[in-house]
Amino acid sequence: MKHALPSIEQAVKEISRLPGIGRRTAQRLVLHMLAQSNGEDLDNLRQALLALKEQVTVCPTCFNLTEQEGECEICTAPERDRRQICVIESYAEFLVLEQSGEYHGLYHILGGVIAPLDGIGPDSLHLEELEIRVREGVQEVIVATNPTVEGEATANYIARLLKPSGINVTRLARGIPMGSNLDYIDSVTLTRSLSSREKL
Amino acid sequence: MKHALPSIEQAVKEISRLPGIGRRTAQRLVLHMLAQSNGEDLDNLRQALLALKEQVTVCPTCFNLTEQEGECEICTAPERDRRQICVIESYAEFLVLEQSGEYHGLYHILGGVIAPLDGIGPDSLHLEELEIRVREGVQEVIVATNPTVEGEATANYIARLLKPSGINVTRLARGIPMGSNLDYIDSVTLTRSLSSREKL
Repeated sequence: MKHALPSIEQAVKEISRLPGIGRRTAQRLVLHMLAQSNGEDLDNLRQALLALKEQVTVCPTCFNLTEQEGECEICTAPERDRRQICVIESYAEFLVLEQSGEYHGLYHILGGVIAPLDGIGPDSLHLEELEIRVREGVQEVIVATNPTVEGEATANYIARLLKPSGINVTRLARGIPMGSNLDYIDSVTLTRSLSSREKL
Repeated sequence: MKHALPSIEQAVKEISRLPGIGRRTAQRLVLHMLAQSNGEDLDNLRQALLALKEQVTVCPTCFNLTEQEGECEICTAPERDRRQICVIESYAEFLVLEQSGEYHGLYHILGGVIAPLDGIGPDSLHLEELEIRVREGVQEVIVATNPTVEGEATANYIARLLKPSGINVTRLARGIPMGSNLDYIDSVTLTRSLSSREKL
């Protein structure tokens, strides 16, 4: 866009830096925002981004995102079961789990998974803090990393890490997703669900 | 996302208002921005949006976007040919035409096309201003609206509107795009390019 105005070019550059947004999409978004004659959309978006930066911090205990000073909304909730800790990769998984409404314990956000090829070793994750946390009356650690190669490796690493503490370490069941069709299931998932078959 | 933090929820809402961005994409973008620990991306984006709002205005003559006070960069450029005016729908088309490097005249941005079904009549567009502009030594008006039903109707409307002034009104040639294959051309385009065939 060598002929675009500098401020438009700059906005397009910043927006196209976001994941999954290319130059053309970014340009379309910028022109859309400019087309709102009163610039209200632009103002609202800017305000929302400012609030994000100023209000969202990280919980020092579970490393989840929070708007509270100190510990987060989950860690300080009296009704949560403090005997369970669910280990997840990021805030996105927290939202999905909370939406299910089936989990009532605490969380521990790793901040990623072990991925040697990307240079992410165990030291880059919040594993040491997890080891310290489980000493305080925790009875079960549910590992809910994604069922990818890295997620599985991280789950195994955590299981080994917590073995000396004698705590019950579990993993979300992997198998055929509800409502799916066997015709379309990949063989790795099918093999796994066959070997983990349950008694009816 | 009923369990999301209010500031995250607000940012997701604002971003998902943009065209072509749903809630899931918006959430991914927000979490990506938050993942940048120093918030630099957020700052840069906010700054770029502020610059958009504060620096970009509309040229009072051609209605193109500009960062200049008064007339825009094209209208005030001494090297542009003031005898030609290219009529386009929006700034996006301006960028494409300038990138081609083949057009050296002035522009006139309509701000849309006539679309009765969407409640956009000729009065909503900058047509009156075009009628006034062509009186000042303009020799040719090149109508470059998109080759859609509305674009074609708008082009015909402009041709009728400017007929009394005796100015040469032309339209971008429509036909088979360069590098395409006849197998894949729709029949409307093929019919048009057949009836507008050129002598070799």
